[in-house]
Parts: sequence; C-alpha cells; structure tokens
Amino acid sequence: MKKLLDKVKLIFDQEQFVHEPKELYEPIEYTLRLGGKRIRPLLLLAANQMFGGEEDQVRYAAIGIETFHNFTLLHDDLMDKSPLRRGKPTVYCKWDENTAILSGDTMYALAWRYFLRLPHPNLQTILNCFNETCIKVCEGQQFDMNYEHKDEVTIAEYLMMIRLKTAVLLAGALKIGALYANAEASNVENLYQFGIHLGLAFQLQDDLLDCYGDMAVFGKKTGQDIRDNKKTYLILKALEIATPSQQEELHRHFASSPENCEAKVGRVLDIYNQIGIRQHVQDAIQKEFELAKTYLDNVQVDPIRKKPLLELMNSLFERKK
Amino acid sequence: MKKLLDKVKLIFDQEQFVHEPKELYEPIEYTLRLGGKRIRPLLLLAANQMFGGEEDQVRYAAIGIETFHNFTLLHDDLMDKSPLRRGKPTVYCKWDENTAILSGDTMYALAWRYFLRLPHPNLQTILNCFNETCIKVCEGQQFDMNYEHKDEVTIAEYLMMIRLKTAVLLAGALKIGALYANAEASNVENLYQFGIHLGLAFQLQDDLLDCYGDMAVFGKKTGQDIRDNKKTYLILKALEIATPSQQEELHRHFASSPENCEAKVGRVLDIYNQIGIRQHVQDAIQKEFELAKTYLDNVQVDPIRKKPLLELMNSLFERKK
Repeated sequence: MKKLLDKVKLIFDQEQFVHEPKELYEPIEYTLRLGGKRIRPLLLLAANQMFGGEEDQVRYAAIGIETFHNFTLLHDDLMDKSPLRRGKPTVYCKWDENTAILSGDTMYALAWRYFLRLPHPNLQTILNCFNETCIKVCEGQQFDMNYEHKDEVTIAEYLMMIRLKTAVLLAGALKIGALYANAEASNVENLYQFGIHLGLAFQLQDDLLDCYGDMAVFGKKTGQDIRDNKKTYLILKALEIATPSQQEELHRHFASSPENCEAKVGRVLDIYNQIGIRQHVQDAIQKEFELAKTYLDNVQVDPIRKKPLLELMNSLFERKK
Repeated sequence: MKKLLDKVKLIFDQEQFVHEPKELYEPIEYTLRLGGKRIRPLLLLAANQMFGGEEDQVRYAAIGIETFHNFTLLHDDLMDKSPLRRGKPTVYCKWDENTAILSGDTMYALAWRYFLRLPHPNLQTILNCFNETCIKVCEGQQFDMNYEHKDEVTIAEYLMMIRLKTAVLLAGALKIGALYANAEASNVENLYQFGIHLGLAFQLQDDLLDCYGDMAVFGKKTGQDIRDNKKTYLILKALEIATPSQQEELHRHFASSPENCEAKVGRVLDIYNQIGIRQHVQDAIQKEFELAKTYLDNVQVDPIRKKPLLELMNSLFERKK
C-alpha cells in the first residue's frame, strides 16, 4: 500500500503538464498539482497488479483517469460557484469562468491522450469502459443538479445519483486496471461491483463527515451541506424517520437561507441527534462496505494479491470514523 | 455531391439523441438538430468514398465529428455570450450557463461513443487523430481569446490561430475518412494538407463575408466583427497597408464601443474600401484555395473519385462571392 502510494506520487511528479498557450495549460497544471488522495489511480494500479499487470502499461491510464476526475471537479466547481477546492482558490475564482470552461474541456481531451498513448489488445474495450463511465458521471451530475430543485427526492433516487456521479468512476478505474492485465471477465465484473459498493460507502461517509467529521482532519467546516440545503443521505433518511413535527421543522430549515446560518445548523443537528441519524448512516455505510467485501471475496486470485486493495479500502474508511 | 448531402442528412435524421435525464439530453438534441452545413461529416464521407470505403463503417464517425464540432460551438457561444446560433437562441440563453457547460461536456463524451462504436484495424491511429485534433481546437480557441486582449496581433499569429481553431478539424475529418478506407500514408497526408488550406480559405472567406456578404444569403447583419472589435484578417491586413492617419483612425475605432455603432462601421468600411481590402482578402483566399487544389492533385487516385470532393469544395466558395 505504501509502495502503491509512492508509485502514484512518482508518476504524477514525473509528468509535465504545461505547454503553449500557457493561459490554457497553467490552470490545468495548477489543478493537477493540487494533490488530493489520487484514489482512482491507486485503484487502477492496485487492480492491475492484482492480476500481474505491468506498471509501465498502466501509468498513463492512471494519469488519464485522474485527469478526467479533475476535469469534472473543475467544471463542477464552476457550476456550483465553489470558491475553494482542497483549501486553494478554484480555477474559476483564481482565473475566470471562460478559463475554467476551456481548461476543463482541454483536460478531458488530455485524459484521452493518456489513454491513447499505448497500444493494447483490449484497447477498444478499455476505452469504451472509460467513455461510458464519463457519460454516466455527466448524467450523475445532471441528476444532482435536478435534485436541487426537486421537492421530493427518494433515497433510491439519491443512491442512483451517487452511483452515477461517484461510484462508477471508482468501479471504472478498477475495471480498467484489470482489463489492462487481461483479467478474466468474471473477475473484472466482481471487481467492478466491488468498486460500485466501495464508491457508495465512500460517498455516504462523505455525507456523514460533513456533519460529524473532525474539522481538523476533514479540512472543512462541518454542516456545510445543511447551510447549502444540499439533499444528502442524512436529510433524506431523517425526513423518512422523523416525527411529523420534526419533519415540518426540517422542511422549513431546508427551504431557508438565513444570513446567519449557525442557528439553523444547530437546530438541524439537534434533530439529527434526537433521531440518531449518525447510526443510520453508519449502518448504510457498513452495508455497502460488506457488499463490497463480498464482491472482492468472489474475485478468483491468490488472496495475498488482494492485500494492497484491502489495505487501500480500509485506509479510506479509517480517516475519521 | 447531391447523393453525399442526402446521405449525411439521412444519417442524422435516423439518429436518436434524447435519453435520460432529459434536462441533459434535450439541449444536446436541440443543438444537433439546428442543422448547419454538416461540412465535417461531408468531408469525412467524401474522403472515405474516394478510397473505396464503406458508408456503414464511417457513419458513426461522421456523427461523432459533427457532435464534437457542435460541442465546441455550444461552449464557444457560452464563452462569447452569443445570443444566437443559426438564427435560434443558443443553449446558454434558452436554458442556462450550467446546462450549457454540462450538456457540452456530455456531447464531447457522446462524440467518443460514436467513434468507439465499431472496431477497425486502424482504430488507435484514427482515435489519436481525432483526439489531437480536439486538443488543437481547444488551443486555437485559447489563442483567439488571448488575441482579444493583445494589442498587436500579426497576420502570421492570426493564421496560426485559425489553422488550430478551424482548419485542423476539416483536415482531421478528411484524414479520418481516409484512414477508415485504409488509404496510403502519402495520400492521407496530402488530403490532410488539402483540408488545412481549405479550412484557412474557408475562414478567410467567413471574415470577408462578415463585411461584404449578402445579408440575405449569409443570414446575419454585415459588419458584426467591426462592431465587436474582433481581430480578423481584414483589420490586421488593413493596419498593415493603411496610411499612418488611416491606421490611427482604425486603431481608435477598434478601441471604442459606441452605443450606436453604425457610424463606426461605416467609417471602417470606408477605409477598407479606400485601401481595397476586399481584393487583398480575395487574393489570400485564392492563394489558399490554389494550395488546397495542389494537395488534392497530389492524391494518387483515379481523378473521377475526386469529383465529389471538388464539387463540395467549389460549393463552399460559391455561396456569395
């Protein structure tokens, strides 16, 4: 696992992202150097190694999938008008909207350049997997935007949305890594499903940490989703199990945007605590986590080869539980 | 040529562009149904047929290249804040900015889906050609945006910019069509260069028509580039050959944005007429046109097979000369 982290770090450190015109490429380099956990390249490399793949064959795919992911963050930040990403100004704030649009478009094209760099007998299958994943991520983002204006969002709808917006890219990274190593179809499929449930657990944990995370570790102020009236698993589950009067109050808070939000955040957290929402979310995370593990168990490979992926998985859920 | 036009029309009529979520796909269908001349699919099919290719093998690539082109128009219209495209409201005006961003991103991914639909022995080469073209188009758009704020733009810089922004996509369409038909490398290269010079001639003609086009045929008010202070071949050439006092006046007009622009447009056109700018641009167009023809002459294939492409080329320059 440590070796994997070092490898991914080295792959990115060795890469050169600035070309001409610099007005286009400097925001791209800035975005790709912001860091982050590099989960998708890590998953891609881990899946590849599990089936005996060669690092040199997947290093560009690893950069490609991270470049795509960072492109989606860049455009999402513009659409959400987010001022900060990883504690630094977002591209649209540091430069401007047009720079964010065009640098993002170019990053997407650069992701393809990485994927097209090396030949592979499975290349068309690999590229199709990458592309269908990209389309699903866009669809997920649209559902997310739709739900902002939709009065009633069900938990099933929410889970469908985060599957598209978040889980399929983790699953796609694993599948691509496995395809590069010519893994058997049943193993590829089990690994993909592992990624889907890992991704769902990961997003649900993100929702939970927004309210109950350790600010110092999580790196942002808690309760931001409540301030933004964002429909996450927490509020949807709360509305399902709260008493009628609590429901009424929650609806009221999530329809308001007071200048000083702290009283609102406090009241919503009070209700969350009264109904024990934290445990409900932890149960949902645990369920997805167990499902993910079952799919990984079904992958037919020497168990010792699963160790880096298991370690990676555990590290993602160790953070601040 | 008529057969080619009918084929391209049929290919687009038969295609279904709407899926779920409709908020994402309706603007895409709207954009792809706005019409336009479909020059890139026409070039792709014509090049393919020239070397004996099969229509069924390139129909998706033809849709793919037009989908990419329309994606760039969609994002360009947003960046330029253009209200109209082909006489209809642009996506960002009819819907909103976020819809334009995300629908555009998705169109780009859909372009890839079309390109990945069929197998081909040359697929990696074809996809690389498509992708390098996409990157160049983005770079061209950035240079175009840079030049808006740059005091001195040379004609060489301008030609480099329109080569990237416009010509490489026409050249890429031709190259892709030829690659699908397994044309020889030297023929592919000559056809690519034909496309580059055709594209340059095409853009220069577009610049000319903006000032001297027949409004009824061209479909927009003449002099718009002057109103927008847009640096096109006309003003750059004019600044090169005008007298010092004319230069000074042109500089003054291109630094101003008066509420009533008509006096300004009239004065700039007066100077253009005094120095005979129209003839200068026509000479430049003719030069590129002749160069294009030379490259097409160098393509080693039965001359009768070049007829549709020659007809297509001539029809592009017949419009309103």
